[in-house]
Amino acid sequence: MMISKVVKPQYLIRHFSTVGGKVPTTPTPEFPGEYREPKVKTVIPGPQSLDLYKKLNAVQDPRATHFFADYSNSRGNYIADVDGNILLDLYCQIASIPIGYNNPELIKAAKSDKWISAIINRPSLGVLPPKEWPSIIQNSFMAVAPKGLHNYPLAAHEKENRAEEDRCLAEVEHLIKTWHIPVAGLIVEPIQAEGGDNWATPYFFQQLRDLTKRHGVSMIVDEVQTGMGATGKFWAHDHWNLSSPPDIVTFSKKMQAAGFYHNIEFRPSESYRNFNTWMGDPLRALELEVVVEQIKKNHLLDNVAITGKYLKDGLDEFQTRFPHLLRNVRGLGTFLAFDLPSPQIRDQIVNSLRAKGVETGGCGTEAIRMRPMLICQPNHINQFFDRFDTTLKEIKK
Amino acid sequence: MMISKVVKPQYLIRHFSTVGGKVPTTPTPEFPGEYREPKVKTVIPGPQSLDLYKKLNAVQDPRATHFFADYSNSRGNYIADVDGNILLDLYCQIASIPIGYNNPELIKAAKSDKWISAIINRPSLGVLPPKEWPSIIQNSFMAVAPKGLHNYPLAAHEKENRAEEDRCLAEVEHLIKTWHIPVAGLIVEPIQAEGGDNWATPYFFQQLRDLTKRHGVSMIVDEVQTGMGATGKFWAHDHWNLSSPPDIVTFSKKMQAAGFYHNIEFRPSESYRNFNTWMGDPLRALELEVVVEQIKKNHLLDNVAITGKYLKDGLDEFQTRFPHLLRNVRGLGTFLAFDLPSPQIRDQIVNSLRAKGVETGGCGTEAIRMRPMLICQPNHINQFFDRFDTTLKEIKK
Repeated sequence: MMISKVVKPQYLIRHFSTVGGKVPTTPTPEFPGEYREPKVKTVIPGPQSLDLYKKLNAVQDPRATHFFADYSNSRGNYIADVDGNILLDLYCQIASIPIGYNNPELIKAAKSDKWISAIINRPSLGVLPPKEWPSIIQNSFMAVAPKGLHNYPLAAHEKENRAEEDRCLAEVEHLIKTWHIPVAGLIVEPIQAEGGDNWATPYFFQQLRDLTKRHGVSMIVDEVQTGMGATGKFWAHDHWNLSSPPDIVTFSKKMQAAGFYHNIEFRPSESYRNFNTWMGDPLRALELEVVVEQIKKNHLLDNVAITGKYLKDGLDEFQTRFPHLLRNVRGLGTFLAFDLPSPQIRDQIVNSLRAKGVETGGCGTEAIRMRPMLICQPNHINQFFDRFDTTLKEIKK
Repeated sequence: MMISKVVKPQYLIRHFSTVGGKVPTTPTPEFPGEYREPKVKTVIPGPQSLDLYKKLNAVQDPRATHFFADYSNSRGNYIADVDGNILLDLYCQIASIPIGYNNPELIKAAKSDKWISAIINRPSLGVLPPKEWPSIIQNSFMAVAPKGLHNYPLAAHEKENRAEEDRCLAEVEHLIKTWHIPVAGLIVEPIQAEGGDNWATPYFFQQLRDLTKRHGVSMIVDEVQTGMGATGKFWAHDHWNLSSPPDIVTFSKKMQAAGFYHNIEFRPSESYRNFNTWMGDPLRALELEVVVEQIKKNHLLDNVAITGKYLKDGLDEFQTRFPHLLRNVRGLGTFLAFDLPSPQIRDQIVNSLRAKGVETGGCGTEAIRMRPMLICQPNHINQFFDRFDTTLKEIKK
């Protein structure tokens, strides 16, 4: 837990637009009872957070802690801390909150008998599944199962990366051919998130799919971080237009539950081969039901596409204005990132943004990643731009 | 999912005691609104279960399924199925239900704002823990943290196993001394559960602790299945009277959350070494708070000791009466098991008991393991004895 400098509250809501004035609207309604802007009262972490840090340290490793949150006072895109600060959250529990803190639809659902039974009677799903289980699966995981073939938007850097991508593909094929045992599977993230938001074009993934097919290697797409709408489509691989669907797709985070989709031929020949006590959690499947409903009802994929374009255009403009600081603005939807000149400057910016009431996170050695919720809208992005502008000017000095 | 023969309901509650008439009482109150006995209406799995099996098969591997449960109609020690059958549950979701289905204290807690916030705002605990987290940990995990030094009851077969245990200890020491790299840790279950409820005496574990200390090897006690009171003490290793506490103790199942206790010297030198997105689930820690409260308030460890003795005495008597069927009745508290002559006869007995309304489970190649909840009382055991008696007589024929 790093201690930031005290920054007095210094922001008034003002119109801020990097792209010539017009803030786009989206079909998504406002989050009921959401805060209007971040509110910073103390250093972050504040005195109460520091006190709790000491208490936690007695029983658990607390060193990765940013601050202690007050979840009952968090709302929509804003996270409250124990010292009364309100932060715009663009990190979202490492990209795992889909539809906002204290979403009223989730509160309503949590009070239902169906949810309460799922919470307090946790079953061994492989042995004694609840009678509702087949229909819960249909309404949650299967309602958003990857399909495989979709249109895709051409990515901007496609041409310039072609040579490097071809080199990488040749290397993969060489490895598969020469490995000392047959290669069973190949796992790939659509955007390599923790590694620094490294990404490749649809061309690359199309070639990779054909290459794996050619050599009888299963293609596993790891959508733990990219899945669930953040790229503007439900699955990032929906952008690729593959010749045949991936063999396995993994998920977690915004899905509220971790697991994988697979084709029937990947079912083990014998029962109990892939087994543990709980085999999942019905509660988290019920939660996914509500989240999927909300994504559809409130047009959250459209919202992500519009907000993502607005965020990307703004970051591009920041890159033009601060070329000595920002490089490589990249990504899809709101799943965006950019590089800073060094890990130190990156950390300085993350801390400075936090001190101003915006929670972000790094990835790779010197990138900042944007991981807003699916309900993040252009007006929230403006609050970020405002504070980002001040931060970059401070760094400049 | 195996299909049992139809067995018409054939039981009336009657006084059944294997040990000369007196059924002991325990300080634990009756579970409010619990069923009085099992009630079997159909074959198990019944037609509704079979129908759901087909539906589930379309989207998930259902082959380990016993039947589909109706959790909203399950109460205390009894699990309801989708076909209207009520079974006494001595398997308990592979030993993971501590204080009964639809426990009213858990229902009450699940409706509280504290729980609802924990359910719908799932944090990245390593990064942004809730302000309640240090106190939740104190009231849940730390309230039952292993202590190390305790009295222990002498085990029955201690003398006859001494030679074998000494052989095993010598073998372990030889392996540690001759392994091609230094041995970092040794992991051991107090009773090797899935493997067939194999167990060793306190002498064995005392020697093992001293041996690991002698060679600088960490001793990890895996209490996933044995922890949380089933042996009549909170941790099975509380029975051992070790010269120094284990270095690491793992837990899961009845604790509602999986994890491990460790000493401060096992904290990684750097942050983020042992890390993932969620790092646990506050909901399950809150659940443990309630369970621990109930264990204390309702004297559930005493209940387990009394019920366990009653169950063990009864099984010993069955062993005397059916020596060609039952062997090696063993265990501590209600964590008991016995061997049958073959895997086939074991499965036949498990299926026959299920058809009569008692859910049990096998372990190892030919054992049946008893894994009742902490609230299981002698009157429930009588219902099992009753049906077990009939089953063994049927097998005899």
